[in-house]
Amino acid sequence: MTEKVALIGSGNWGSAVAKIVGRNVQNFPHFNKEVKMWVFEEQVDGQNLTDIINTKHENVKYLPGIKLPDNVIACSELKKTCDDATMLVFVVPHQFVAGVCEQLKGRISPNCKAISLIKGMDVQESGHGFRLISDMIQDSLGIRSCVLSGANIASEVAEERFCETTIGYRNLEDGELFKQIFHTPKFRVNIVDDVVGVELCGALKNIVAIGGGLVDGLKLGDNTKAAIIRIGLYEMRKFAQMFYKDVKDETFFESCGVADLITTCAGGRNRKVAEAHVTTGKSFDQLEQEMLNGQKLQGTSTAKDMFNILTKKGLCHEFPLMTVIYRICYEDLPPIRIVEDI
Amino acid sequence: MTEKVALIGSGNWGSAVAKIVGRNVQNFPHFNKEVKMWVFEEQVDGQNLTDIINTKHENVKYLPGIKLPDNVIACSELKKTCDDATMLVFVVPHQFVAGVCEQLKGRISPNCKAISLIKGMDVQESGHGFRLISDMIQDSLGIRSCVLSGANIASEVAEERFCETTIGYRNLEDGELFKQIFHTPKFRVNIVDDVVGVELCGALKNIVAIGGGLVDGLKLGDNTKAAIIRIGLYEMRKFAQMFYKDVKDETFFESCGVADLITTCAGGRNRKVAEAHVTTGKSFDQLEQEMLNGQKLQGTSTAKDMFNILTKKGLCHEFPLMTVIYRICYEDLPPIRIVEDI
Repeated sequence: MTEKVALIGSGNWGSAVAKIVGRNVQNFPHFNKEVKMWVFEEQVDGQNLTDIINTKHENVKYLPGIKLPDNVIACSELKKTCDDATMLVFVVPHQFVAGVCEQLKGRISPNCKAISLIKGMDVQESGHGFRLISDMIQDSLGIRSCVLSGANIASEVAEERFCETTIGYRNLEDGELFKQIFHTPKFRVNIVDDVVGVELCGALKNIVAIGGGLVDGLKLGDNTKAAIIRIGLYEMRKFAQMFYKDVKDETFFESCGVADLITTCAGGRNRKVAEAHVTTGKSFDQLEQEMLNGQKLQGTSTAKDMFNILTKKGLCHEFPLMTVIYRICYEDLPPIRIVEDI
Repeated sequence: MTEKVALIGSGNWGSAVAKIVGRNVQNFPHFNKEVKMWVFEEQVDGQNLTDIINTKHENVKYLPGIKLPDNVIACSELKKTCDDATMLVFVVPHQFVAGVCEQLKGRISPNCKAISLIKGMDVQESGHGFRLISDMIQDSLGIRSCVLSGANIASEVAEERFCETTIGYRNLEDGELFKQIFHTPKFRVNIVDDVVGVELCGALKNIVAIGGGLVDGLKLGDNTKAAIIRIGLYEMRKFAQMFYKDVKDETFFESCGVADLITTCAGGRNRKVAEAHVTTGKSFDQLEQEMLNGQKLQGTSTAKDMFNILTKKGLCHEFPLMTVIYRICYEDLPPIRIVEDI
C-alpha cells in the first residue's frame, strides 16, 4: 500500500525536516510524492506565508536561505493537511499538541501512524504526575506514535552537516517506515525499541544544559563541566527508569542521549542564559526577556516540572543535580551550590 | 594493619595526586603518615629537584604554584621509595612501566597492592596483540592492580575544582582502600568492578579526541562533533567488550568513560593538533614538533596501535571511525573523510 506523509508544524525544525522528508519520499515507490505541511498562517511582507512557501519553496520566516523540495506543499488548514495522510509528523511546540489532536480526532485515516519530534512533557495530572507527548498523541488519536530526538541543531541539519538522530518505536515496522523518510547519509537514523527513553532524553536534557551554563559562568573548567554532564545523564537515566522500568540503558548511548546532551551543553539558549545568570547576577526571567527575543527558556520550566514531580514523590534527595538546578533557578540559591550540593 | 603509600612518579599529574594523597592519609588511623614520592632526579637552577620539593614543598618544575603537604617526601631512589610500601601508585609515562617493574621485582612487601594512573597500552606481542598496563604490573610484580582514570585535567584537580574520577578494581577491598587515599569532596571517586573497562577508556579516548579536533578544524559544528564523540564512545565500548567479555556497559557512563571523553574532546593537545592539521595542512609529525614543546601526541600513536590490532584481526570494517582517523593521520586521507567513511 501507499503511504502519505503530513508534517504538522513548519517552524525552524519543522522546515529543516521538510527538506529531508520531501526528498526521501521520492526515493521509494511506496510513498505518495506529495508531502503536505501545516503552516500557521501569517503575513510576511503583505503575503501569506503559505503562498510564499508554495511559490518560492522557502520558509523565509523560519528557515531563510534553505530551499525546500517542490513536492512539499504548505497548507494553512490542519484537517486538510492530514485528511489523506497515513504518517503524521508532529513538530509543533509542545503546548499546541493537545489542541492539534483535538482538531484531528475522528478525522484521520484508520491506518495512520505518528511520530513526535516535540521536546517537553505534559505535566497535567496523571499517575506519574506527568505524561509523555507521544502518549498524548496515542491516547487522543488512538494511533501508535514513535519519537525522534537527537543532537540536531536545526540550522546545521538544514545545511546538511553530518549528524545522527534516534527514532524510538513501539512497533518495529513503524520504526523502519519512519526511518525511510528521515534517514540520509548526512542525517543518520538509528532506531531503538524504546519510545519512552528517547522522549525523556529530549525532555530532560535542557535542565542539564542550565547546569552546564552555570559551570561555564563560574569558570570552573572542563573537568567540572564534564562531571555535570555525566551526572546529568545519570540522573536522566535514573529518572526515566524509575518511572518506566522498560527504558533501556542502551538508549542513553544513542544520539538522543549522550550526543544531544553534549550539543545542548555546548551551545543553545539554556546554557547561554544560565551562564549570563552567573556573570550578571540577573534573574532567569529578566534574562529570558532580554536575551531570547520572545523565545521561551525550556530548561527552567522543565526543571520546575521535574522538581514538582520529585517533591510529590519524596525523591529530591535521589536527584541532587536536578534539585539544586531548580533551586538556583527559582529559590535564589548561589550558583556555586551546583558543585556543593551534589 | 597499617598501610603505607608510595607514589611512583612526580610529573604534573603525579604531583597533583600527591597533594590529595598526602592529605588523605592523615585522615585515617590505618595509614602511615609518610608518603614517599619517587622523583627522577634533575637539576633546577643548580639544585636537586628532590631537595627543592623537600624544602619548598612544591614541584617547581612540573606543578608550579601548588603546595604539597609536608608529609610527601621526594626520593630519587626507586627501591627506597617503595621498600616499605603496601600501596603503590603508578603515575609514570607508560613507556617507563616495564623498567620500573623490573627494578622492583622481588623487592616489594608481600601484601603490596598497586593502582595504575597511567594512560596507554603495551603493544608488545601477546594473545590480543596488546597488553594492559595494569596487567603488566600484575604479571611482573605478582600483585593485584587497580586502575584510576577520569575527566581529570591535572591543573584543575590541583586547584581543587570539582570533578569526578573512577577506580576500577578486581577486589572490592582494594577498591575501597584506594578510594580512601584519593576521594575528596572536590575529587569524587566512584569505584567499579571493571579494571579493564576503566583502563581501556583512558587508553582509547585520545584517538577520539583526534576526531573531535578534525571536526573542529573542518568547522562542521556542534551536531557533528557530538556525533563523533558518540560514535567514538560506541567503538571504544565495542572494542573493549570484543577483547574482554567482562567489560561492563555501566563503566562507560562513569567519569572514566563519557566524562573523560567530553573533556578530552573539548581541550587537550590531541584535539588542538588535529584541528591545526586541518587548518594548516601540515603533517601531524610537523605539528607535534611545532606545537607540543617536546611532549608526545598520544592520539596518533594509539590510533596506529589500534589499527595494527584491527588489521591483524580483520576487524577494520567494524570500527570505521577508529580506522578512518588512523588513515587521516598516517595515510594522508583528506580530513573530510571522517564523516564520509563512517
